[in-house]
Amino acid sequence: MEIEKPPVDRERIIPTAERRGLILVHTGPGKGKSTAAFGLALRAHGRGKTVKIYQFMKVPSARFGEHRVFEQLGVPIVGLGDGFSWKSKDLDHSAELARHGWAQAEATIRAGETFLVVLDEIMYPLRYGWVALEPVLQALRERPAHVHVVLTGRGAPQELIDLADTVTEMAMIKHHFKAGVPAQRGIED
Amino acid sequence: MEIEKPPVDRERIIPTAERRGLILVHTGPGKGKSTAAFGLALRAHGRGKTVKIYQFMKVPSARFGEHRVFEQLGVPIVGLGDGFSWKSKDLDHSAELARHGWAQAEATIRAGETFLVVLDEIMYPLRYGWVALEPVLQALRERPAHVHVVLTGRGAPQELIDLADTVTEMAMIKHHFKAGVPAQRGIED
Repeated sequence: MEIEKPPVDRERIIPTAERRGLILVHTGPGKGKSTAAFGLALRAHGRGKTVKIYQFMKVPSARFGEHRVFEQLGVPIVGLGDGFSWKSKDLDHSAELARHGWAQAEATIRAGETFLVVLDEIMYPLRYGWVALEPVLQALRERPAHVHVVLTGRGAPQELIDLADTVTEMAMIKHHFKAGVPAQRGIED
Repeated sequence: MEIEKPPVDRERIIPTAERRGLILVHTGPGKGKSTAAFGLALRAHGRGKTVKIYQFMKVPSARFGEHRVFEQLGVPIVGLGDGFSWKSKDLDHSAELARHGWAQAEATIRAGETFLVVLDEIMYPLRYGWVALEPVLQALRERPAHVHVVLTGRGAPQELIDLADTVTEMAMIKHHFKAGVPAQRGIED
């Protein structure tokens, strides 16, 4: 029987002085990109670190399960969108909101007061051209060295993958929607 | 420009009467399998649902960020392991603990009082043969219809994939360990 290395090697935890912030990307068509970012946010918060979550495709009034818990924990989770969907008529407005949202997120990243910044579903505005890629890459490159940034959404641009420290592609092997099972409250929202 | 469907289709949320529990599997070599399960747990808890997390490869005394937060939220997170690693000498003891842990988890799944049961890193004991696959599949098949179960770990058995409603494979595109960047407190623990 092959005994393989467990997923986290505890011995690689090293002193604070040698640490640095990471760029983590969750992409691909499968489930778990945002929930894994929320799990990281939870973990960092549990370690007493400052966390801020920006959601590019959620409205400010979103009250999914995660919003309720992060509010209770005092972790800011900021909806930057206008409920954009593939049926949206006013894409100019969506684009304007995304640019405004990015400006907020960029300021947070550059300020260096937040240990972990989550840019949830930022791949959408990047792919739609609402937010230009180069300024995002530049802000990530120029960020204070201790700041971790998680970026989620399908279709991560290659330049972002090149820049990132860790990239996970969530591949959809099966999805219950395809079998006709609808979204479940408490699981999908 | 192709406008594709956003990841969650709000219109598919349907009345409670038509809902049912799901089997969700997070597998593959990439990051995010456990953190995505924690994100789901967070979301369900935020919706006022009961959640219980069993961790097959963590010791009961584990105090990672997630343990601290789930404890604060009143979500049980139970370490079932003995700190097994690829250097472990006493594999019989690890196997015994895993079987004992599975008995606890099975009882929770069958009791039907928990909306979401997380079986974190259960693929390890399944692959090592510490816990037999068939009784796990049977408990999943026979569970009360409203119970959701998330199972994580690399190398999910095909029979489990066949049974599951939703399977995501976390593929590792890049990992900072491979670039010599060590584990970061607050990100990896």
